[in-house]
Parts: sequence; structure tokens; C-alpha cells
Amino acid sequence: MPDDATSLAVRCAEVMYGNDAASQALGITVDAVAPGTARARMAVRDDMLNGHGICHGGYVFTLADTAFAFACNTYDDVTVAAGADVTFLAPVTAGTTLSATATERARRGRSGLYDVTVTTEGGDVVAEFRGRSRSLGRPLLDAPG
Amino acid sequence: MPDDATSLAVRCAEVMYGNDAASQALGITVDAVAPGTARARMAVRDDMLNGHGICHGGYVFTLADTAFAFACNTYDDVTVAAGADVTFLAPVTAGTTLSATATERARRGRSGLYDVTVTTEGGDVVAEFRGRSRSLGRPLLDAPG
Amino acid sequence: MPDDATSLAVRCAEVMYGNDAASQALGITVDAVAPGTARARMAVRDDMLNGHGICHGGYVFTLADTAFAFACNTYDDVTVAAGADVTFLAPVTAGTTLSATATERARRGRSGLYDVTVTTEGGDVVAEFRGRSRSLGRPLLDAPG
Amino acid sequence: MPDDATSLAVRCAEVMYGNDAASQALGITVDAVAPGTARARMAVRDDMLNGHGICHGGYVFTLADTAFAFACNTYDDVTVAAGADVTFLAPVTAGTTLSATATERARRGRSGLYDVTVTTEGGDVVAEFRGRSRSLGRPLLDAPG
Repeated sequence: MPDDATSLAVRCAEVMYGNDAASQALGITVDAVAPGTARARMAVRDDMLNGHGICHGGYVFTLADTAFAFACNTYDDVTVAAGADVTFLAPVTAGTTLSATATERARRGRSGLYDVTVTTEGGDVVAEFRGRSRSLGRPLLDAPG
Repeated sequence: MPDDATSLAVRCAEVMYGNDAASQALGITVDAVAPGTARARMAVRDDMLNGHGICHGGYVFTLADTAFAFACNTYDDVTVAAGADVTFLAPVTAGTTLSATATERARRGRSGLYDVTVTTEGGDVVAEFRGRSRSLGRPLLDAPG
Repeated sequence: MPDDATSLAVRCAEVMYGNDAASQALGITVDAVAPGTARARMAVRDDMLNGHGICHGGYVFTLADTAFAFACNTYDDVTVAAGADVTFLAPVTAGTTLSATATERARRGRSGLYDVTVTTEGGDVVAEFRGRSRSLGRPLLDAPG
Repeated sequence: MPDDATSLAVRCAEVMYGNDAASQALGITVDAVAPGTARARMAVRDDMLNGHGICHGGYVFTLADTAFAFACNTYDDVTVAAGADVTFLAPVTAGTTLSATATERARRGRSGLYDVTVTTEGGDVVAEFRGRSRSLGRPLLDAPG
């Protein structure tokens, strides 16, 4: 049975995902949510390829950014991305399914730091992302009615 | 009349854009291309909104990354993104048209550094991006037949 | 004659510098202070060389970070560095005098973004730095009286 | 008994440190060297304090950068820093002894990515650093005579 913190994290993710038109439209799924961590998956479609014939870096970033957003919003405290750094390590071809796993590196006051590793299904790392979060200090979940 | 370097930059951009399914599918347009610089525009659609009801940071990044890609590929030398850092300065609402202007900060050997400022049509800065490029040392344009 | 904002910037820099044992011990000087901008200089000493016989990147960063600190503390509002990204573009040899010029890229609420370019006296760019600042919301200068 | 890779890493560190005037002058010590990892320590001296009376961020960076340099030079392949990102999480007071542990996050061709965590002796994290390395493709150790 999940503990209370994990249950809270999962409920936050459910609310976030339900409202997240962007992630849904991209076919991103989110699982493995727990306090400070989340995993997101996305299949690279043909309309995500850039002029070099590989997945546009923006979509690799978007997947990582989504995992980051779900990981830093697991405490029922609305939290937004202040910024991020990404390193692209390998090109991604069409048809690949990518997985992004976000883990919390540090949290201090309203600021947080999250590392996200993006891999292929075969486990090859294609990008490393580090996101900087800032919480707004208000609850994500509705007060019980 | 444009000089040769500008003509070359424009031809590179035309070839890149023609092959760039991702940018086309997002409705991104690219103009103001010259050696080391490019401007890209994108209207924020409803399917780009995240769970907080604002434009997913991934799309803001994608627009900036596109301007960066076109700017660093203006020398007929295939150049890819090695990484980037982005700072999100303001939330972006649906219906906004964003403009991203990339300028070359430094180029040394095969490495380059490009700054991209993303603004609304009203001129408000919503993100600052700094991209790190790496050229592959082979021409982008086909040899004349 | 300097305007009030510039006078305030200069007074902030004077107070900062007087207390800044680190910058003084490194022989760093600070000039050209104005709202949101500052320039710092440092001669690279033999005890700043690393195992490759070139200036330790830490000292190049430190000079840039000093220019950044003075630039973001020009508004009489105690401001600290939240983080920074640096790109090293060229090795620096002993005896070189480096100059770091910080300019404000963005400021929004308590957060700021500053670009610092580090050059040799001959104008060669050796590093590009982007600092993220956070103000503490309290004055830097003593109240009069 | 250490394996060959660890012995090589230690020999690289010994040669690096012997030539590293900067680290020696700062009182930095390096230990726990193994392939892709290194730990460095430094006591914060009074001449490292900035205008806010806390350790100048440049010295925190320098310690992290040193651990990074030793970690990425453990393969007998001269490797330099291409850049780094640092997040400052807590102020550091005089007299603190800092420890920086560098671990390899990724390595691909001549490029590498290293994470460095800087802590106090009590284990409080004061900074997170991510360094980007580039190898030069030539040996660090002298060929046997």
C-alpha cells in the first residue's frame, strides 16, 4: 500500500495530467510518480522530425520538462519551471519510444533542482536535463468540498 | 541586394525548413535569416497548454531551439545542438504569437554559442535561451549537379 | 554629471568592494558601474594556473561572478547569485589581464539574468557567463544618520 | 588491491595535482579518485569571503571545478572543461570545510558530463554543479622512457 506522501503525489499527477492538453496531444504518458520523482514516456512521431531527419531537440526537451513538472508538483504545492539546462547526447530516430525519469536533486525553500535522464527503450541515454523549479506557495488540489 | 554570405544563409534556411516536419507541423515560420542569426515565429495553440493552463515550457523551448538551429546552420556546415539553457521569465497564455530571435554570441572551431530571446508581439520577454552548437564539418547544401 | 541611479550604483559598488576580501585578495578591480552593469579586471597570476598550465577555470568564473555580483547589486537591494552557467572558449595563459563586463539581460520581480563576457586586453573572448540572481528585498546601503 | 583502471586514475591525479599551482595555493586536497570520479576538499579562508560576508561563489565553483577536472582526467586522456552550470543552494560561512564529489553522468566520444555536489562536513549541500568536458585525444601521462 502506498504511504500518504505517495498517494498525495499520485493525486497531484492525476489532476495535472487531466488538465495538460499539451502532454495529452503529444501522446505522453506519466507513471511511476512518487514524492519528488516521475517518469514520462513518448513515442517519437514523424511530425517530430527536424531538418536533419532526427527528432527535434524541442520534443526531447518537452518530454524531459514534462517529467520534471510532474516530479516537482508532487507535494500539493503549485510549482513552475524557472529554467532548465539540457545536454543532447545522441540523435533520436523516428519510431523510438523515449522514457524520461525525473529525480529530485535538491529542494530548499521555494526552489528545487531536478535531474531528468531521457533514454530509449534499449536504455541508451539520449539527453540529460536539469530543471530549476519555483513553488508558488498555494495548493494544487482543491480543498475538499 | 544581399551579399553572398546572406544569400548562402537564406539558401541553407530554405533547405532546412523544407525538410523540417516538426517546425512545419507547429506552424513555426522562419524569417530574417543572415549569417549567425535567424528569427522564428509561432502562434500558441490550445493543444500547447499545460496543466497550469499556460503554454508548456517545452513549446517555448522548441521555438527558441528552432531559431537557434536556423541561426547556427547559416554557413553551409551541418550543425547540431549540443545543449542549451533556458530561463522562463513570464507565463505565456493561449493565442499569443511568440517571436524568437537568435544571435551568435561566439564561434570557435566547431563550437558555437547562440542567444535567443523569446518575446510576445507586444515585446514582452518571456524566455531567454542560450544554445551550444557543434558543427559536423560537412556541407548542408547539395553540391551543384 | 551622473544621474541619481548611476550615483546609487556607484555607492553600492563602493560599499560592496570595501567589504569584499575575496575580490581584493585576487587583485580584482571594479569600474564602469552603472544600473545593471559593471566591469571587473584581474591579472592572472602564476598561482592561478592549473595542472594543464593555463588559468584555472575557477578563477575565470570568479572574475565573471564578481562582475555579475556588482552589476546585480546596483539598485540598493541586496542580491545574491542563485546560479550561473559558464562556457570556456579559449585557454588563458599566465600574465594575461582579463576584463569581465556584466550587463543585465532581464529582471523580473526578485529574479534577474546577467550576461558576462570575459576578454583579454586584446579583445579575445575567453568565456561567456550567464548569471541568475535573486534579490533579498532589503537595502544594501545603511540608512542615513 | 586496486584494478588497473583505478591505478591509472590515481596516477593521472598525482601528475595533475603535482602541476596544479592553483589547487595547491587554495589548500585543496584531492582524494577518492577512481575512473570518472574524484573528491576534493577545501577549507574556506577569510580571504575567500565576499562583500556579503560569505564565501565568494567563485571559490565554491573553483572547488567543484577542481573535483570535475580530476574526475574527467582519470582515463589518461587530457580533458578540459568546455563549460559548467552551478546552482548555489546555501551560503557558506568562514571556517567551513567544503567537500566536492564529482561523478560521471555520461561520456560519449570526446564529450563528457559530470555532476559535482558540494557539501559541508555536516553533509549540508551548498551547491550542485554540472560540468561539460571535452577530451583532446592525447595522453596525460608521459610515455615510459
